[in-house]
Amino acid sequence: MRIDIISAVPELLDSPLNHSIIKRAKDKGLVEIFVHNLRDHTQDKHRRVDDYAFGFGAGMVLQIEPIDNVISELKSERAYDEIIYTSPDGEKFDQKMANSYSLAKNLIILCGHYKGIDHRVREHLITKEISVGDFVLTGGELPACIMTDAIVRLIPGVISDETSALSDSFQDNLLAPPVYTRPSEYKGWKVPDILLSGHQANVEKWQHEQSVERTKRLRPDLLD
Amino acid sequence: MRIDIISAVPELLDSPLNHSIIKRAKDKGLVEIFVHNLRDHTQDKHRRVDDYAFGFGAGMVLQIEPIDNVISELKSERAYDEIIYTSPDGEKFDQKMANSYSLAKNLIILCGHYKGIDHRVREHLITKEISVGDFVLTGGELPACIMTDAIVRLIPGVISDETSALSDSFQDNLLAPPVYTRPSEYKGWKVPDILLSGHQANVEKWQHEQSVERTKRLRPDLLD
Repeated sequence: MRIDIISAVPELLDSPLNHSIIKRAKDKGLVEIFVHNLRDHTQDKHRRVDDYAFGFGAGMVLQIEPIDNVISELKSERAYDEIIYTSPDGEKFDQKMANSYSLAKNLIILCGHYKGIDHRVREHLITKEISVGDFVLTGGELPACIMTDAIVRLIPGVISDETSALSDSFQDNLLAPPVYTRPSEYKGWKVPDILLSGHQANVEKWQHEQSVERTKRLRPDLLD
Repeated sequence: MRIDIISAVPELLDSPLNHSIIKRAKDKGLVEIFVHNLRDHTQDKHRRVDDYAFGFGAGMVLQIEPIDNVISELKSERAYDEIIYTSPDGEKFDQKMANSYSLAKNLIILCGHYKGIDHRVREHLITKEISVGDFVLTGGELPACIMTDAIVRLIPGVISDETSALSDSFQDNLLAPPVYTRPSEYKGWKVPDILLSGHQANVEKWQHEQSVERTKRLRPDLLD
């Protein structure tokens, strides 16, 4: 898989895209991630890529031309499954969407910043608007990292023990059961006896019951 | 405001917490952010902070002791409004929660990683579990950055033009209207005439109508 991320503040992307699981996936050749600095694609001699919004609202808006330049160049080189814009009014990102995009070949993710991007980009160049939640951020860079992380870790071979991803929350519409590790007692707080019993069938039954109980209590909507 | 972030993979947090708006807020003295490496708080000579889960599930679990060490030390130094754990089964993070936490004095955010954290941490040390969405990530570091960004930009004085934050999506349960900037025509794609008209009242009426229309079409649930 190839992911192209377009940003006006690409330094925000540095550490999340170069450590831990994403780094491992890149090192294994399972994903290629390219970050494009919008400022490298403008004719402006001061490398500005934003300007005042038309009208009377406050805030700066990313201009259409540098964005069009990057996207056009990328599209001339290969076919993209989706050209995504991260926006709080887009479709809500969830595990199902992450599963689906983990099968994609080429994705572009455009990060907004400041007050947003020129709306003509959204009308003419973007194929999908995605939101990671009902909150406002400084830019689309963290949502782009969130999507990349959620998607990349599902590519077969990225997580060494594949059952680890399969038993995560949401993969089966259930929250994960509680997990515990050594020591079995700490300051008087004990690990449930059943987990120390060595009876695999009983442990798995308990874990499933805990998952169902937690989901009913905390997220009954998942069971609808 | 002071935010303490506890992580087993703190290098993931580097760039999001040191650029753009968060950097500016720190430089202005409006927020202090301290990152605590869990590995600095273990007795283990190999600085390990995770171990195999009890039972038969796959994956590694963060141990209780180093986490308890950091949290106890921080709590002995000052009172915290909340000790947050980022988890997909927590309460959903939204703009209202960001507004509320932007008034806090001291926050701890504990990032899970690998398969999760020893459940006793959640039972005894955490005061609030928060989820940024229904998807599974490698760790809680990106959610911690998301929360920090959403909260910090709401602290008065962080964004230079305060009306900029007030007119964002969700602040009034409406999505933001479309924004445009120069040039007014690009490849035949034009900015709506009204935005170029110079009539402030008409522009603001149009922007409000667009907000309502977009909200009705894309997020009718916000109007309930």
